Amino acid sequence: MTDPDANFTTAEYEGRIARTRAAMEQRGLDAIFVTDPSNMAWLSGYDGWSFYVHQGVILRQEGEPVWWGRAMDALGAERTVFMTQDGSIRGYDDTFVQNPDKHPMQELTRLLGELGLEKAQIGVELDNYYYTAAAHHSLTKGLARATFHDATGLVNWQRAIKSDGEITYMRRAARIVEGMHARILECAEPGMRKNDLIAEIYAAGIKGADGHWGDYPAIVPMAPSGMDATAPHLTWDDKPMRKGEATFFEIAGAHRRYQCPQSRTLFLGDVPQKYRDAEAAVLDAMDAALEKAKPGNQAQDIANAFNTTLNKAGFEKDSRCGYAIGISYPPDWGERTISFRRGDTTVLQPGMTFHFMPALWLDDGGLEITEPILINDTGHECLCTTPREMWVKA
Amino acid sequence: MTDPDANFTTAEYEGRIARTRAAMEQRGLDAIFVTDPSNMAWLSGYDGWSFYVHQGVILRQEGEPVWWGRAMDALGAERTVFMTQDGSIRGYDDTFVQNPDKHPMQELTRLLGELGLEKAQIGVELDNYYYTAAAHHSLTKGLARATFHDATGLVNWQRAIKSDGEITYMRRAARIVEGMHARILECAEPGMRKNDLIAEIYAAGIKGADGHWGDYPAIVPMAPSGMDATAPHLTWDDKPMRKGEATFFEIAGAHRRYQCPQSRTLFLGDVPQKYRDAEAAVLDAMDAALEKAKPGNQAQDIANAFNTTLNKAGFEKDSRCGYAIGISYPPDWGERTISFRRGDTTVLQPGMTFHFMPALWLDDGGLEITEPILINDTGHECLCTTPREMWVKA
Repeated sequence: MTDPDANFTTAEYEGRIARTRAAMEQRGLDAIFVTDPSNMAWLSGYDGWSFYVHQGVILRQEGEPVWWGRAMDALGAERTVFMTQDGSIRGYDDTFVQNPDKHPMQELTRLLGELGLEKAQIGVELDNYYYTAAAHHSLTKGLARATFHDATGLVNWQRAIKSDGEITYMRRAARIVEGMHARILECAEPGMRKNDLIAEIYAAGIKGADGHWGDYPAIVPMAPSGMDATAPHLTWDDKPMRKGEATFFEIAGAHRRYQCPQSRTLFLGDVPQKYRDAEAAVLDAMDAALEKAKPGNQAQDIANAFNTTLNKAGFEKDSRCGYAIGISYPPDWGERTISFRRGDTTVLQPGMTFHFMPALWLDDGGLEITEPILINDTGHECLCTTPREMWVKA
Repeated sequence: MTDPDANFTTAEYEGRIARTRAAMEQRGLDAIFVTDPSNMAWLSGYDGWSFYVHQGVILRQEGEPVWWGRAMDALGAERTVFMTQDGSIRGYDDTFVQNPDKHPMQELTRLLGELGLEKAQIGVELDNYYYTAAAHHSLTKGLARATFHDATGLVNWQRAIKSDGEITYMRRAARIVEGMHARILECAEPGMRKNDLIAEIYAAGIKGADGHWGDYPAIVPMAPSGMDATAPHLTWDDKPMRKGEATFFEIAGAHRRYQCPQSRTLFLGDVPQKYRDAEAAVLDAMDAALEKAKPGNQAQDIANAFNTTLNKAGFEKDSRCGYAIGISYPPDWGERTISFRRGDTTVLQPGMTFHFMPALWLDDGGLEITEPILINDTGHECLCTTPREMWVKA
């Protein structure tokens, strides 16, 4: 098992790289250029808030991965990546940064040529946030004899089954999100400005739990109340919390970039019967769904069990009810691979981790009671012990 | 002036749209499809953490802007945009989300056709984080008779001169970042875990200042110490602060998505002469540079004055020393238009706002003393009153 107090071992990175190379070989790829910050971190250890400039990791069938980015960030790469050989960290000149007259991909073109890839089969993450249409245009034009293939998700899929070391980090993140929810219950009350509550949530999350520090979540805490909670992704302002309103808290604990999201809902004052009915329906449907969360079942089995039970109670949910989680950077804490929805036939395996996310948006508010789960040898484990219920403060 | 306690008026949005349409007309564009969340917000008022899925705002030469995104986020659009007409908010089905078998741009293609744009000249933000190579491929394939043009930065450039209402928000953000720095000075001390200090910074920033709430900064607080501070973009862990080390704090206050970044450096213990020399050199060079920060001068005049003075003192800085700021979303709090660097001939005008960012990275640490500034009628104003010096705690 990976030393729980250090970063991952070189052996762990080598294992990840071997899995990735096998997937590349299956698709006939000589190399991939990976821009998703979570894939960069998973393959190389690189960790820095530099994904607002063009950067990436190049992985060939031989040799160390090559980190490529802005020259000033090469110093951050030296302090975070596992690679040790000369030439495994390459920085480009600052004049390429946000300069309409030239594009950093011109520099990458030169580097890929130097690495012998001018006529190679190269995979790129065509649908990743950090691989723009302009980047692809510049790169394909510059390396006109190479052939480019869509490798969106190729590395993400290799990340699905977590190592023991990764699970250790996720358990720490689970302790942290438990602590964040406990802090909410402790201090939320009518009249409290929402931003003051968010400040408490952030502080609890970053202080960490059980002696383990909190990293930044890949999505900011979301905590809309009342009608604002009919929409899922609004962030906070200073409106005070009020009696008679439900507030959902969609938040994540994070440790060394591993994310453990969990949502709960707090009702202030007397709970209308409609919310009690919704809570009962969701909890029943969650039980039915989690029975399907075991190795050998498919991802859609969880969604189908959830929806069937929920519909019987008279409620409906159109959107997916879960997704894979692990290491992540903004803007998303999901792995963007497996979804709990009809048609996703991915077979569940031990070591996979998910956010089971059966949120309900009602006509006058939202109800989110969710569980981060780990598929184990016989079924699943809920990573958190947060009481599974709608919280009420009178 | 915009009511300082409300969002912007419809008249303000109409003014922004008129400027944008003039720029579109100059380039012969019938429509633009804008995916940069800050451009979406600036044109329509939309505010939500939903930029991890494909979405955007369509602006034609006539009619209201059209918000387009995931169906569940259309509810958030209803609660935030200024548009009121039927059909100005369009949501796509959840099955398009992160589904390798189909792409949301297929839906956008249909919508653009419905809006009469099948043969139009359409501008897209080719080099924006939230416009991927796959999105562009799907859209251009779907709308084969339209002609696509690069409109990266087109809207960003319209944002350069701030309205009174925007400046009001930036002043509030300035009060907030002042408070964050004050909190750092108050509680940083040898032995304090870095993450505990970050928790304090976050809490101060989100509680806000002068009765105005804090929004999330577009970049997380960066606060590396010692050797970690030789690299600019590393985030925190739990290493304790130590005597004999400098820590720089690159942080921003934020109010209603408007960002006011400011950096300061704290040295714990006895300051080596090298740091005193660097501080003196940077402060002198800042004075020389800020004398050039006035209407009619060019952006590069500031950089040239800074570098000339800095070099005389025996220090060098390779990278740009400032950039435009305003409304922003992750991953960057800059506007990605004007840079303070040689060759940027943009003429400074009253109402422009910048982060003058003369950071020095030394061989054993970093020194950042920076100022957010507003160009006014006669020169400039520093938005913050934070003492301009390297801080020392013995």
